[in-house]
Amino acid sequence: MASRSRRDNKYILIALGGNAFQTKGERGTTEDYWRNVYRAAKAIAKVVSEGYRVAITHGNGPQVGIISVWMDAGKDRAPPQTLDIAGSMTQGWLGYLLMQSLRNELVKHGLLGKTVKGVVAIVNQVLVDKNDPAFQNPTKYVGPWYDEETAKKLTKEKGWVIKPDPRGGYRRVVPSPDPKDNIEKDAVRKLLDDGWIVIASGGGGIPVVYEDHGILKGVEAVIDKDLAGELLATAIGVGKFVILTDVDKVYLNYRKPNQKPIDVMTVSQAKKYYEKGYFPPGSMGPKVLAAIRFIEHGGNEAIIGKLENAYEVIKGLSGTRIMPDKD
Amino acid sequence: MASRSRRDNKYILIALGGNAFQTKGERGTTEDYWRNVYRAAKAIAKVVSEGYRVAITHGNGPQVGIISVWMDAGKDRAPPQTLDIAGSMTQGWLGYLLMQSLRNELVKHGLLGKTVKGVVAIVNQVLVDKNDPAFQNPTKYVGPWYDEETAKKLTKEKGWVIKPDPRGGYRRVVPSPDPKDNIEKDAVRKLLDDGWIVIASGGGGIPVVYEDHGILKGVEAVIDKDLAGELLATAIGVGKFVILTDVDKVYLNYRKPNQKPIDVMTVSQAKKYYEKGYFPPGSMGPKVLAAIRFIEHGGNEAIIGKLENAYEVIKGLSGTRIMPDKD
Repeated sequence: MASRSRRDNKYILIALGGNAFQTKGERGTTEDYWRNVYRAAKAIAKVVSEGYRVAITHGNGPQVGIISVWMDAGKDRAPPQTLDIAGSMTQGWLGYLLMQSLRNELVKHGLLGKTVKGVVAIVNQVLVDKNDPAFQNPTKYVGPWYDEETAKKLTKEKGWVIKPDPRGGYRRVVPSPDPKDNIEKDAVRKLLDDGWIVIASGGGGIPVVYEDHGILKGVEAVIDKDLAGELLATAIGVGKFVILTDVDKVYLNYRKPNQKPIDVMTVSQAKKYYEKGYFPPGSMGPKVLAAIRFIEHGGNEAIIGKLENAYEVIKGLSGTRIMPDKD
Repeated sequence: MASRSRRDNKYILIALGGNAFQTKGERGTTEDYWRNVYRAAKAIAKVVSEGYRVAITHGNGPQVGIISVWMDAGKDRAPPQTLDIAGSMTQGWLGYLLMQSLRNELVKHGLLGKTVKGVVAIVNQVLVDKNDPAFQNPTKYVGPWYDEETAKKLTKEKGWVIKPDPRGGYRRVVPSPDPKDNIEKDAVRKLLDDGWIVIASGGGGIPVVYEDHGILKGVEAVIDKDLAGELLATAIGVGKFVILTDVDKVYLNYRKPNQKPIDVMTVSQAKKYYEKGYFPPGSMGPKVLAAIRFIEHGGNEAIIGKLENAYEVIKGLSGTRIMPDKD
């Protein structure tokens, strides 16, 4: 497992939320994507300029949705591909945007070829357990909305689970199993050690299961990107795990009259709050859980904060820090 | 540049043609893709079992076309992305298929964790010259077919060059500039040295140009995958460059009554034939040109042969070998 010597606070894994690519109210044109990704790249470049060695992961929910919508619209002209393949496409897409923008920001800072050899994204599979209970209870909505008739047809033809969406219409739901291993983790570690900024586990990784005798097979599921990020952070032994999103801190009773920001909490406090259901399952819940796991697996510090404040978050001047219990 | 010590015939770069993914008459379902890619993976695993260290590149023409068709069909629901981004998506897609299938074949051979640490695809940018004459003369058809009215509309709205396709209808044409540098080549070399099989420069790479002061920018173009493969093969210093396609050899006067197979030719002979126009520009031409460049850049041997015969091709028992001139 993780080598203790690598629990160095100079090694950071940054998990980027969806707002690094597309923000509310945008159509999601190529120009929108580049503008947003440069904002993330500028924030990360500032972190790198301080000598931090950085690995990056990112979400892909909206983009898997967009590719599913395109495939559905064009299905009469080219067969749609499965969800694991749609996920692999987003790793290429978002990896490319991040690679190029971050490399360019490093060039502007005069850091390329000095502190950093380069920026590279890898295509990355993440193992899940084929007996994970999530497979019996798919919960994640993905792709286009259908009318009832089409929903029934697709259920019959493709064996999909399709449910009414609370926002109207019918939509496919897929399982969100827990990540168990990052298949290409050693390549991430090798490149990081060699001075590269590595983008990996994009969208939580391409979900795969073991069939007999160690043979991998893709499955139609989505993995939470923060939980998969924690798995990678622990596997490669970084000291800090930083989750960047669109809120500045973790709150108790978020958006209620009695909401209370948290600056710092021990892993035991975080677990207590988490188990009492203080954090909503779809949003802050998995982030806090990922932070808890990181500390329990030997990490020094997990921080949840706002993308634009990346530098301050990593310095401990902004966001919510989750720390080991005091001995 | 390439270190001489790495001109070792145990290091091979394999360039896979489109038939590794989709063959004539197939619809291109996910099942078709997996079946084809396993055929390629089995052939490559046999090569790896002999102790060769392998990097792989691959084409993406049909898949960039398919993504363009999907994006066009779904354009009212999600904005289509540019061609460099479509290319990045194919690197994720085809990289994933190759990674998983080849890894599984290595597991079956008992080679994983012994000869080979793993298989990993990287997202990979390839530099072209923004003054390349190809930008003044786009020649490569990509994406969907349009009627004349839509063609005129897209020319006006997007500034695309759209031409009548000899097969009917109107289609976008894009430049095919010459590759000049592989931006992430050092990551490929590092992983290869560490025992990984690396998939890189997919689809000829994501085409980028330098703007002012070393800043990269994607361009809407396609790069020949064999020429980009040669660039990578030379940069990482492999001894052999192997182009696998759907014909068994290079022929003079291919498919004419006087066609003549070539078993071996020196680089000077190859250049003479190439310059006399013996090889068609769209198919064997760039392969022979890539082979010529590889030898001129110090490579030991370039071989062009059939995918199914990969093992025999690499052993020199099948295909056409292009060798340095005798001193």
